[in-house]
Amino acid sequence: MTSYTVPKGTRDFLPDEMQRRNYIFQTISSVYQLYGFAPIETPAMENLSTLMGKYGEEGDRLVFKILNSGNFLENTNLTKGYKELTFDICERGLRYDLTVPFARFVVQHRNELVFPFKRYQIQPVWRGDRPQKGRYREFFQCDADIIGSNSLLNEFELIQIIDNVFNRLGIKVIIKLNNRKILAGIAALIGEESMLTDITVAIDKLDKIGQEEVNQALLKKGLSLESLEKLQPILTLQGSNVEKLNCLESLFSSIEIGLQGISEMRELFGFLDISEIGANIEFDLTLARGLNYYTGTIIEVKASDASIGSICGGGRYDNLTGIFGMPGISGVGISFGADRIYDVLNELNLFPEELSSSCQVLFCNFGKEEEIQCLRWANAFRQAGIRTEVYPESSKLKKQMAYADAKKIPHVILVGEDEIKEGLLTVKDMLSGKQLKLSLQATIDYINGK
Amino acid sequence: MTSYTVPKGTRDFLPDEMQRRNYIFQTISSVYQLYGFAPIETPAMENLSTLMGKYGEEGDRLVFKILNSGNFLENTNLTKGYKELTFDICERGLRYDLTVPFARFVVQHRNELVFPFKRYQIQPVWRGDRPQKGRYREFFQCDADIIGSNSLLNEFELIQIIDNVFNRLGIKVIIKLNNRKILAGIAALIGEESMLTDITVAIDKLDKIGQEEVNQALLKKGLSLESLEKLQPILTLQGSNVEKLNCLESLFSSIEIGLQGISEMRELFGFLDISEIGANIEFDLTLARGLNYYTGTIIEVKASDASIGSICGGGRYDNLTGIFGMPGISGVGISFGADRIYDVLNELNLFPEELSSSCQVLFCNFGKEEEIQCLRWANAFRQAGIRTEVYPESSKLKKQMAYADAKKIPHVILVGEDEIKEGLLTVKDMLSGKQLKLSLQATIDYINGK
Repeated sequence: MTSYTVPKGTRDFLPDEMQRRNYIFQTISSVYQLYGFAPIETPAMENLSTLMGKYGEEGDRLVFKILNSGNFLENTNLTKGYKELTFDICERGLRYDLTVPFARFVVQHRNELVFPFKRYQIQPVWRGDRPQKGRYREFFQCDADIIGSNSLLNEFELIQIIDNVFNRLGIKVIIKLNNRKILAGIAALIGEESMLTDITVAIDKLDKIGQEEVNQALLKKGLSLESLEKLQPILTLQGSNVEKLNCLESLFSSIEIGLQGISEMRELFGFLDISEIGANIEFDLTLARGLNYYTGTIIEVKASDASIGSICGGGRYDNLTGIFGMPGISGVGISFGADRIYDVLNELNLFPEELSSSCQVLFCNFGKEEEIQCLRWANAFRQAGIRTEVYPESSKLKKQMAYADAKKIPHVILVGEDEIKEGLLTVKDMLSGKQLKLSLQATIDYINGK
Repeated sequence: MTSYTVPKGTRDFLPDEMQRRNYIFQTISSVYQLYGFAPIETPAMENLSTLMGKYGEEGDRLVFKILNSGNFLENTNLTKGYKELTFDICERGLRYDLTVPFARFVVQHRNELVFPFKRYQIQPVWRGDRPQKGRYREFFQCDADIIGSNSLLNEFELIQIIDNVFNRLGIKVIIKLNNRKILAGIAALIGEESMLTDITVAIDKLDKIGQEEVNQALLKKGLSLESLEKLQPILTLQGSNVEKLNCLESLFSSIEIGLQGISEMRELFGFLDISEIGANIEFDLTLARGLNYYTGTIIEVKASDASIGSICGGGRYDNLTGIFGMPGISGVGISFGADRIYDVLNELNLFPEELSSSCQVLFCNFGKEEEIQCLRWANAFRQAGIRTEVYPESSKLKKQMAYADAKKIPHVILVGEDEIKEGLLTVKDMLSGKQLKLSLQATIDYINGK
């Protein structure tokens, strides 16, 4: 038999996995909705003119391109190299993230939207990365953004959402916060404003490679020994969130941008102080998350009990739609990493035992006559909201029981001659093996746990 | 400003439309679940070796192909025509329907599945059709199949599901049934077994082009006048479902395949008689739906009050996975046409006024002090399951009210100095304009409609 499989880096999802994934998606979307975010979707394909130049050189390469229909060779010069040729024979590509399509969406529909605009979007994206453990060519992103408002209440709301989602999922998290303006203040403080990008890239790696290597990297990039010296106390800043902010404030003294960052962080911590956030909130100066994109608050979330990297992140940006010719739209957004959250829930054994779309009851099938009665009762079950199957064939009971076992159906109903005569149902609890003979209503109540 | 839009034939979905679409998808999936169907998903991309040759010549052309990564021109002979070249430079394509990927899925995971296997799948598919009104290049299919069981209980279950879904959506429907074996019996009866395909194609068009043109088409295809004559009474068969079956049974007399079809239809009608199906069920001999695919029962659903073609269809097939080298897997399936159902609900004004993900309450923002109290109360609302927003800025009240109006938020909460002093909330009903001053719990009860 020829082996037919999914393309490399992509996955099928079987029922058990689907139910677990849907549990994650439903938890996230119901919390988004609780805060008034509305869903949108964009097409899998975008014009390459929308996608190209937005993700850097590597991104341009990793976007999947779709071959034009019909004779794609028409009006093409085949002596071109493959890179140039690509844009002659492909006009469209697959969505690479949700942010760029969202920006295109906002520009295209600007006259139909109500600002501040709060949207969430849960859709797959595709990247031609080399597949490896935990990295796929098709994966889901779960984004929410508020655009058209500069208020820090929006940041606060997103942090509440993060806390609420992970609380519902049972995952203990640390929410790390920083502000890009504080990083800019630090660059100004040590007199290396032009090296802001290099400094934040280096700080971003502090966790992974340590202070010594960060220093080496910065020297290589051309940071002076003097500036590096000035940077050291900042890299090792200690104390509570408030203490750190106080310390930085006095260091900044008259550096406007740095003070603005401090003030924003203070306002945000003010909101957090009066809230019922369960998660640990940590001001983390080493948090930089990408670079040129964020302009204010930066957010990153890690699971306290699993060593798996960031499971959610986001921040504030000044200019979402400028790339599409519509400047001045600022906003703040977050994105949950569904695949990593799945891994954390799995590792910590936190998935609920019963996930809502699995079947609750199987009626065994003893033959034509019993079948008819089972069909009637099964309908009564379904009208009571119980997910119910009738085994479609009068196979051997052993086979039917094996089916219930394999599908983890918790209750099996046996209806034979006696049951029909008495008008009662025999219910077998598949876990305990216990059998009861009950009336229809009593069976429904029993299964519904009443 | 350059105009950035979605590619031709694809669509963005804005919040209102998303909520309506989600309502359809959730209705369909919750009914599928009620009957014990479990969700699966397959990747957007499949290998072209999986997709090619499965949808006829036109389908092969309309599958979107994905350009290989890297230097796709390596090992390619550019003097080839574009058709041949396609398969040198593209290894993958986008999903064209859900059936072929499902067949590939069953073969790939055959050792992990429990048979009979009942799955549903709601995912987009992509086709390079010329875009036109109501026909898109990206659209959703909502399929359910039961494979590995020949029992007609499965057909019955799918008909119950159809009835249940349209009942929940409030759409009155006619469910048309036929059986491919009856069509084969007719071909045998008029002595033209080799022309079964032509006859069923022609019968399929009876509704659209009328008897006269069907006859012309059959003559052109080479059906003899004599056979055509024999076919006429069958094309104009009248009476109840039972009368039609009786009449055909006597015509078939000893044509085995036709009698088998009659017997299957009788068994299915037997189940339907004892059920509480609300829809009209009609035995329709002109129903053929595609051809070589179905081998038994054929199902098609039309809305009684809208002239919009088929909104759901399906049937039994003998050999789902034979194309992938795994013979003998029979099954039966249906597919709901979400876009057409959307149009019917829209046309008949059947969408519920309140769709579940929209926001229920907006707290107006009167400034820093009031804001803090609003944030506390908003959290209490959310803990009570009420979808709640706090306006993020203390803009003019008029602007905040316009925001609530545009988002169709039914309740606005006003918290000023007085309310804070009294510990009460002023609730404004945005439809009636009525205002009430209530305690927190009373407001929650009021919004929850208690």
